[in-house]
Amino acid sequence: MLGTGLIGLFYTATLHGGRNRDRVHLVYSRSEERARAFADEHGVPNWSTDLEEAVSHPEVDTVIVGLPNHLHEEAIELAARSGKAILCTKPLARSAAEAKRILDTVEQAGVFAGYLEDLCYTPKTLKAMKMVQGGSVGSVTWARSRETHPGPHSAWFWDEQQAGGGAIVDLGCHCIEIVRNFVGKDNRPLEVVCWTDTLVHPISAEDNAIALIRFESGAIGQFEVSWTFRGGMDLRDEVAGTEGTIWLNHFLRTGFEAFTSGAGGGYVAEKAETESGWLFPVGDEVAELGYVDMFADMFDSMDAGRQPMETFYDGYVVNAIIDACYRSAESKRWEPVELEDWRGAGVERIGRERREHDGKTVIKQETMPDGRLKLILKDEETGEFVDVVTEAETPVGA
Amino acid sequence: MLGTGLIGLFYTATLHGGRNRDRVHLVYSRSEERARAFADEHGVPNWSTDLEEAVSHPEVDTVIVGLPNHLHEEAIELAARSGKAILCTKPLARSAAEAKRILDTVEQAGVFAGYLEDLCYTPKTLKAMKMVQGGSVGSVTWARSRETHPGPHSAWFWDEQQAGGGAIVDLGCHCIEIVRNFVGKDNRPLEVVCWTDTLVHPISAEDNAIALIRFESGAIGQFEVSWTFRGGMDLRDEVAGTEGTIWLNHFLRTGFEAFTSGAGGGYVAEKAETESGWLFPVGDEVAELGYVDMFADMFDSMDAGRQPMETFYDGYVVNAIIDACYRSAESKRWEPVELEDWRGAGVERIGRERREHDGKTVIKQETMPDGRLKLILKDEETGEFVDVVTEAETPVGA
Amino acid sequence: MLGTGLIGLFYTATLHGGRNRDRVHLVYSRSEERARAFADEHGVPNWSTDLEEAVSHPEVDTVIVGLPNHLHEEAIELAARSGKAILCTKPLARSAAEAKRILDTVEQAGVFAGYLEDLCYTPKTLKAMKMVQGGSVGSVTWARSRETHPGPHSAWFWDEQQAGGGAIVDLGCHCIEIVRNFVGKDNRPLEVVCWTDTLVHPISAEDNAIALIRFESGAIGQFEVSWTFRGGMDLRDEVAGTEGTIWLNHFLRTGFEAFTSGAGGGYVAEKAETESGWLFPVGDEVAELGYVDMFADMFDSMDAGRQPMETFYDGYVVNAIIDACYRSAESKRWEPVELEDWRGAGVERIGRERREHDGKTVIKQETMPDGRLKLILKDEETGEFVDVVTEAETPVGA
Amino acid sequence: MLGTGLIGLFYTATLHGGRNRDRVHLVYSRSEERARAFADEHGVPNWSTDLEEAVSHPEVDTVIVGLPNHLHEEAIELAARSGKAILCTKPLARSAAEAKRILDTVEQAGVFAGYLEDLCYTPKTLKAMKMVQGGSVGSVTWARSRETHPGPHSAWFWDEQQAGGGAIVDLGCHCIEIVRNFVGKDNRPLEVVCWTDTLVHPISAEDNAIALIRFESGAIGQFEVSWTFRGGMDLRDEVAGTEGTIWLNHFLRTGFEAFTSGAGGGYVAEKAETESGWLFPVGDEVAELGYVDMFADMFDSMDAGRQPMETFYDGYVVNAIIDACYRSAESKRWEPVELEDWRGAGVERIGRERREHDGKTVIKQETMPDGRLKLILKDEETGEFVDVVTEAETPVGA
Repeated sequence: MLGTGLIGLFYTATLHGGRNRDRVHLVYSRSEERARAFADEHGVPNWSTDLEEAVSHPEVDTVIVGLPNHLHEEAIELAARSGKAILCTKPLARSAAEAKRILDTVEQAGVFAGYLEDLCYTPKTLKAMKMVQGGSVGSVTWARSRETHPGPHSAWFWDEQQAGGGAIVDLGCHCIEIVRNFVGKDNRPLEVVCWTDTLVHPISAEDNAIALIRFESGAIGQFEVSWTFRGGMDLRDEVAGTEGTIWLNHFLRTGFEAFTSGAGGGYVAEKAETESGWLFPVGDEVAELGYVDMFADMFDSMDAGRQPMETFYDGYVVNAIIDACYRSAESKRWEPVELEDWRGAGVERIGRERREHDGKTVIKQETMPDGRLKLILKDEETGEFVDVVTEAETPVGA
Repeated sequence: MLGTGLIGLFYTATLHGGRNRDRVHLVYSRSEERARAFADEHGVPNWSTDLEEAVSHPEVDTVIVGLPNHLHEEAIELAARSGKAILCTKPLARSAAEAKRILDTVEQAGVFAGYLEDLCYTPKTLKAMKMVQGGSVGSVTWARSRETHPGPHSAWFWDEQQAGGGAIVDLGCHCIEIVRNFVGKDNRPLEVVCWTDTLVHPISAEDNAIALIRFESGAIGQFEVSWTFRGGMDLRDEVAGTEGTIWLNHFLRTGFEAFTSGAGGGYVAEKAETESGWLFPVGDEVAELGYVDMFADMFDSMDAGRQPMETFYDGYVVNAIIDACYRSAESKRWEPVELEDWRGAGVERIGRERREHDGKTVIKQETMPDGRLKLILKDEETGEFVDVVTEAETPVGA
Repeated sequence: MLGTGLIGLFYTATLHGGRNRDRVHLVYSRSEERARAFADEHGVPNWSTDLEEAVSHPEVDTVIVGLPNHLHEEAIELAARSGKAILCTKPLARSAAEAKRILDTVEQAGVFAGYLEDLCYTPKTLKAMKMVQGGSVGSVTWARSRETHPGPHSAWFWDEQQAGGGAIVDLGCHCIEIVRNFVGKDNRPLEVVCWTDTLVHPISAEDNAIALIRFESGAIGQFEVSWTFRGGMDLRDEVAGTEGTIWLNHFLRTGFEAFTSGAGGGYVAEKAETESGWLFPVGDEVAELGYVDMFADMFDSMDAGRQPMETFYDGYVVNAIIDACYRSAESKRWEPVELEDWRGAGVERIGRERREHDGKTVIKQETMPDGRLKLILKDEETGEFVDVVTEAETPVGA
Repeated sequence: MLGTGLIGLFYTATLHGGRNRDRVHLVYSRSEERARAFADEHGVPNWSTDLEEAVSHPEVDTVIVGLPNHLHEEAIELAARSGKAILCTKPLARSAAEAKRILDTVEQAGVFAGYLEDLCYTPKTLKAMKMVQGGSVGSVTWARSRETHPGPHSAWFWDEQQAGGGAIVDLGCHCIEIVRNFVGKDNRPLEVVCWTDTLVHPISAEDNAIALIRFESGAIGQFEVSWTFRGGMDLRDEVAGTEGTIWLNHFLRTGFEAFTSGAGGGYVAEKAETESGWLFPVGDEVAELGYVDMFADMFDSMDAGRQPMETFYDGYVVNAIIDACYRSAESKRWEPVELEDWRGAGVERIGRERREHDGKTVIKQETMPDGRLKLILKDEETGEFVDVVTEAETPVGA
């Protein structure tokens, strides 16, 4: 386990949680104090402040990178050289170029490499993806992912140099990959338009951003990220398709609602801004945020010799979309997503099937209260639109 | 009452509803059959198929325009010439140029003119605006308005010529004005970026669109409109500010939830796509959609000799933003909102107040579980970011 | 308008609200100061501290009783003697005996008498009743009504002598009548079991109560009332039937959600316990609580010479059920509802239709994932239960 | 694993799920066909149709009883004789007498015994209990647990002889134990009043029941169970206390909402009654229903040599309460809970602290909009209640 910050904590809590059979054997930190404290608290037998020593420790078969963004490349290079399996936290890198170098490194070394994109693994997201893949919503036309909160907990996130950007790099990377999983990973991201601004905090990186991503099928992805949201952490995804809709809420409205006058005085809800009034806790945060299913997929895939759901290639695509977002925020126009290495199979345009009635195009049909069918028709020759009520009770072409 | 479509119906139901003291005295339709039927059904004493006759009828003191978009200008001109008060449904016109001519017409005639933007008058929206104006959410940073459903009920909506566009003209006009009310009407809309596509229906107008509107204060407005949404009618607004958040749901989740096996067989919920399974009706649709409060404001303002909350000038600004949306969808870049007549007072940029601790900029502060204060600080000289835990228990500068 | 408390305020706000055509012509209070102040604030032309003078004032055609419970009988007697129409707030009386005398008074005087049970008139409740009456939920098996908050605003509510009881008399009267509307007013209430306790407040009346009401059809009604609830006002109704379910939420979750840091400092949500954190306002409180539709029904019924939905007879039945509740709380057993005057038509027992398969009773059937039908059957001779999977794909007897 | 029904399936899925280190070594069924099929499907190395052989198999260290209720006692006796740890599904027995014999058996044998009450272990319930224990809601005054669905999947549940009852035995056992965990296990259940009826299904056992349980502290527990609910599975718990409120929703509203036209045709949501329209799936059903945390507690407790959260003693108390429910349904009065073996420590009555102002009892205090304090006071000598507005801005006695 490289890193002892919040993410190292979540990862270790997950690996050591429940009746799990996996264990952290060594923890690395740049600070000896933090390494020792972390090892003590979590029952980790070894600790180190030497990165090379850590990744090549004989009891370690998998290196988990939970370091600040600017340290990913070096750590992965060292781990790949040791031939260890590598799991890297999000985002993979600070830019598509850096991500591509990382991807090349692990592919050349031939080691197992998994991208720790936890929010694609939440139980709700996994089931929703299965519904989408099973056709429950038809062709996806729109996917929106929103992650907003009042700002990150560690200093390095706020430093554009170390992080590689602001709220987009921190939160947008999740949203982009959620959107890709819903519209389909074979669906090439073509271009992006993005707004960013620094509205509240005294920093140079963006504290708010919204982007639209246009995919090959015509589907549109949308992300909204913010470090200035008030009210806790807002984590919601929405998918619309030709046959259905899915709404997911991962945090503030999950069926757990509590009011307290503030009595008891203890910690009552994660990321809540207040300790009294109405609070909306999450049952099992580590499970609800996807950590449990993510590591199960990673280790099961490793054991089975197959690729995990989220790979370093996915991390690279995310970085390429982020790069396009920053270019668009600058140029104030749609910018192409530049992918020198596109591995998707390609998809068809969302269908616009034409149905006819009396030689005219059926625009819409509704069943009226009396059971008759109302049609809105277009005469393609004259371009005229008319309402027609038919006696037929069964839908045309259905 | 000019027009006997769905909107004429809603308006008349509102005016004749409850213990209301206002009455429709005459109904006009282009079709004699519809005019007669409407007058009969709603107890309206007079009907006409002659527009000029209708607007100048002696018992009429207010002309309500509920006609398709391309007929607004002519009707308003005739009504203004008769010196009658005029209430016009949304959108005011098909373009800013047409809207400006209409605005000039009523202003030159000196008649009372109200813009029937019902969704700005829903009881929830009115109370939320009051909260925003009272400072409950601080400076508004973001306002999102979403209106999506499976497509309109009358043929003319689908005809780009008559309507002046697709889902933006039909639904986006609501969203834009809701956003303006939340960010403040003195807050000039500067520029717009917009995506449109025709993903599902066999028409030339857009059936899906998303736009971002950047305002003078830095606030961003966002609208999402669709004629391809599945699941009923999705009407939601969200506002984020430096001090708070508001979420409004006007249709599918309003505290009324019903499951039915389909027994009974009757009409159970408005705009529902199914008649069995889980349904989400609205209590009093006419009240919840703002019609009651809208007409109360219109007639009370008329009686009191003051401007209503929503004026023809607002309708003109909406059209100017819509024009910019269509230009942006074409040019694929941000486009300025062109307002030859801007009447807003102007607003300040959203504040980014700088606080200091030990000569460094305070980026964020959090109270830790043990009561101590954690600060993230930036050294403006070196550009470095650090975490500091202080012994002070009271927030710095608070 | 007799009374200047919270209820007089709500009533007057409703009558003078929107574009309403009805007006309060006189206000009566036992205190001259309150009468004057109320008249001034609400533009009421006359005031009085003499009850007899007030009810017989020549400009008054309807007397609205908004007084504490122990003053209802006297006020109604005087009003009935003057031949005026009478509308009385809930509960009608403090006991069934008192209610019966009041009922006899107005029936002998032959005056119009309406029971102001606002919560039966909320737009959601009205629509839900229509769904139930239309058969959407089949036969009602269970109706639950819950009203809880931290306690009433005026001193007399807390005094058992003046009020006639505690939370049951204050809140349970609403719940009972909501339940009756859902199970059907022809459905005779047979018996009641009730728990009461004084858990928190230093009073002799109950501050918490729960009761079950068994009706002739077999349906069970349930109410939960409390003066010790924390978190605002919880107003929810639920109905279950053989074909469906309805859930209504009138207050804390109505599609209006707000978080505020407390900035602005103003009044943000009715009956909220805090002014910061997550708040759940109601759009238009007077409309959502049923006042608007209630008075519309009352005056429309009066104009049309028909009975309103809620009559003094209903008020009497409610008091008879409350009496049974108090007897049950005392005797710790089910107590009969004593109704010397029952006017309902009577209803049938909830149906238990028996279906057969191979000579056995079908207990349950489910479609399995492979399309086959699984049946749980009972052999009535041997009493044995078995699972059977049939090849038939269509439900038996459907 | 004894039993191959739905519960055996859920248990095995949990034990073999994720990265769990525990494994099922043998499966027992009364039918060879089901035993073989189950072993094959779940990779269980051994199977048996001989109960004695199964529980004494050398590779087995823990016997999990997932059999119909009437087979628990025999299986537990055999397992206890083999000296194996025993985990038994809910309810422990069909009556308190049977439960007491089972309890005595395992205690005399000195084996580890855990009560598999999964719904007390849902992540939401565990966190809510921690909040309650930490004082967030003050003294619990009321706990309600509701479990309703359209009826169980296997024949034996419907047979009163095998099951020991109907919906109470099947579902009420969960509710009772949830309520006990919220009011505190040292809080003795004193008496019960219960309504049961068979409203819809052609069976002799109850298909609907509601009960109130009065505890030593004054707290009231409430359960609502039904086999006739329409709309899926309704699993909700609510807790009210002197300082707060908690609402939990485990199934139909958990932040996962989907609409589908029915395209795709697959399985979309567990226990949903329809495959189209609005559906409310659960993310990870096994985790959300508590199976994961339950087995973790059981095996961790076994390893650590401590008692699990839910013991056979708890199962016995539940059965004693169920017995009282059936007696009350029969006698139509409150019935005592008969516990020959009560191990709770006992608790105090919910506090009714008296505060004074000017020698009078403070009944309620509210801060008025102008900042002044309004008090409702009672003169204990005269018994009079008055409203007083004080100039003090700070709450009295706070």
